[in-house]
Amino acid sequence: MKIILDVMGSDKGPEELIKGAEAARERIEADIIYVGDADVIQTAAAKNNFKINSGSIIHAPDVISMESDPFEIRSMRSSSMRVALEMLSEGAGDALVSCGNTGALHTGATLYVKRIPGIHRAAISALLPMKAPVLLLDAGANLSVTPEQLTQFAIMGSIYMNKVLGVDSPKVGLLNIGGEDCKGTPLYIEAYKALRKTRAINFVGNIEGKEIPFAKCDVVVCDGFTGNIVLKTIEGMGKFVSSSVKDIFSSFSGKVGGMFVLHRLSAFRLSMSPSVHAGAPLLGISKPVIKSHGSSDAKAFCNAICKAERYAKAEVSRLILESLESSGAKNDKAPSATESTK
Amino acid sequence: MKIILDVMGSDKGPEELIKGAEAARERIEADIIYVGDADVIQTAAAKNNFKINSGSIIHAPDVISMESDPFEIRSMRSSSMRVALEMLSEGAGDALVSCGNTGALHTGATLYVKRIPGIHRAAISALLPMKAPVLLLDAGANLSVTPEQLTQFAIMGSIYMNKVLGVDSPKVGLLNIGGEDCKGTPLYIEAYKALRKTRAINFVGNIEGKEIPFAKCDVVVCDGFTGNIVLKTIEGMGKFVSSSVKDIFSSFSGKVGGMFVLHRLSAFRLSMSPSVHAGAPLLGISKPVIKSHGSSDAKAFCNAICKAERYAKAEVSRLILESLESSGAKNDKAPSATESTK
Repeated sequence: MKIILDVMGSDKGPEELIKGAEAARERIEADIIYVGDADVIQTAAAKNNFKINSGSIIHAPDVISMESDPFEIRSMRSSSMRVALEMLSEGAGDALVSCGNTGALHTGATLYVKRIPGIHRAAISALLPMKAPVLLLDAGANLSVTPEQLTQFAIMGSIYMNKVLGVDSPKVGLLNIGGEDCKGTPLYIEAYKALRKTRAINFVGNIEGKEIPFAKCDVVVCDGFTGNIVLKTIEGMGKFVSSSVKDIFSSFSGKVGGMFVLHRLSAFRLSMSPSVHAGAPLLGISKPVIKSHGSSDAKAFCNAICKAERYAKAEVSRLILESLESSGAKNDKAPSATESTK
Repeated sequence: MKIILDVMGSDKGPEELIKGAEAARERIEADIIYVGDADVIQTAAAKNNFKINSGSIIHAPDVISMESDPFEIRSMRSSSMRVALEMLSEGAGDALVSCGNTGALHTGATLYVKRIPGIHRAAISALLPMKAPVLLLDAGANLSVTPEQLTQFAIMGSIYMNKVLGVDSPKVGLLNIGGEDCKGTPLYIEAYKALRKTRAINFVGNIEGKEIPFAKCDVVVCDGFTGNIVLKTIEGMGKFVSSSVKDIFSSFSGKVGGMFVLHRLSAFRLSMSPSVHAGAPLLGISKPVIKSHGSSDAKAFCNAICKAERYAKAEVSRLILESLESSGAKNDKAPSATESTK
């Protein structure tokens, strides 16, 4: 097993990611291939006494920034992300992890690694740190979708949660404004019907925003506009409520039992943080591509690499293809890569 | 000032609402008119030693349930909500508060009280209990909207926040998936342009979900599908995080300082609850109609009544009409009431 890492373009810089990767090497049996500015990687390794083979470093000095237009990946041939994606496509590794620009990673994965045959659109998914982890997709790649695409998202999300996170018969919900099958826009009413007749999934019906945290389902499907806004609202609310609670106890910390309170509170805040549930798969791409949060620390990046290993081992892409074929959700008229990422 | 109350159709029943109304009478100078089952109202009043004039009770025994189709209000002539709306329309009161079916209240208000001339769609708004209160609209009445309608929502929300909540020059944000003006669906890109050139508002640009809790703006506009999902996600996250924190401290409550911890925590949970920020205006209706949460307790209902009084006193509807005329956002081709509530 070889895992390709794009170590450029993250908020905390390559050194933090290299620390995470070296920690991951102790947890999983996989070779690591670093893609990025070779000098920067070597310097960071030396500083931390990591022994990295020069053969495990692929020099790709250019960086696609967080602010770049996703389509810049087409012209930035020597960017670390583009090089890493082409290496994955050519079989130089079994999975890829990047903390870089999400839109560029989705566009590049679609263009260079390609989708699973019959998949109409690849989805960005996000694992929400709830009572039980919830996979939300699409989380921002496809602002408008069709009922057929939502059905494919449901199938892909179910297989991922089953094979990578070990959830038995994952419950799938359609994010909507009410429980009844008549609720929502015409798209969502049609999607409900399509999901209900899809045998490959365990569809539990519409799910409202207030139900997401309470383990009502394991996979939530929606369009990428709604999904991105919900994902960020959850992120904001997690920060807001936990910082408000911390303020309440700040005056209490010097008192008897204060340390006990703050210790348990910080454990809870950690369980809500992206580092624990890090690593979101780009589902629908023919090989495992994992997006780790742009502000990943070493621990988060390590977790994402471990997830990439499970993703590759479980042969999720092959299982998705088989499931599409047997459920009739395969779409032989899927558009070309350049069309679908427009 | 006379305030009409629809006391039927709420989760906690008429008695709880009557307690809230009698509390409100001590806080504001307004006559209260109760609409509902006269026997039930008299019995509840007697039980609590409230002296309610029989002239202040209008008998309307039928109830539109929470599960009813909103359009049932057209056939349910003696339902408390229908009677209350017609009384408001005919000038029997200056404002109306109801805890009933939101869709029916929106439909009925549009049909019987009518919209402000030039307003294309009335919006359901929600006041979010954040660092500073944030008005979100539309929160579920209009699943698809136009840039022009979003502009009208922004103008109405700004006037409400200024005149009823006393916010100086309210900041307006467009809910979107990123800050740049090119972000979002074609509708949102067009809406951004329309909002930017609207002089009557203080438009601060796109706002992401994660920024909602942190006082980046006072008014958030979006389509009703997205708004309803975001509203309910915020509700769910508030419950989830605060109940998780409570669990953390439950084992601590018997220890030294435990009472202090739980007391402060419950004060925070209260500030996040709907009762404190209760009462959402149906903006765009020609007279003040306030929706109070279906599960309102006496305190929440009392707060909603006090808000209705400020809403009526501030002449928000007249100010909206004037602002539309001076900003050119008045739409003389607004559809008829029956068209717009379809």
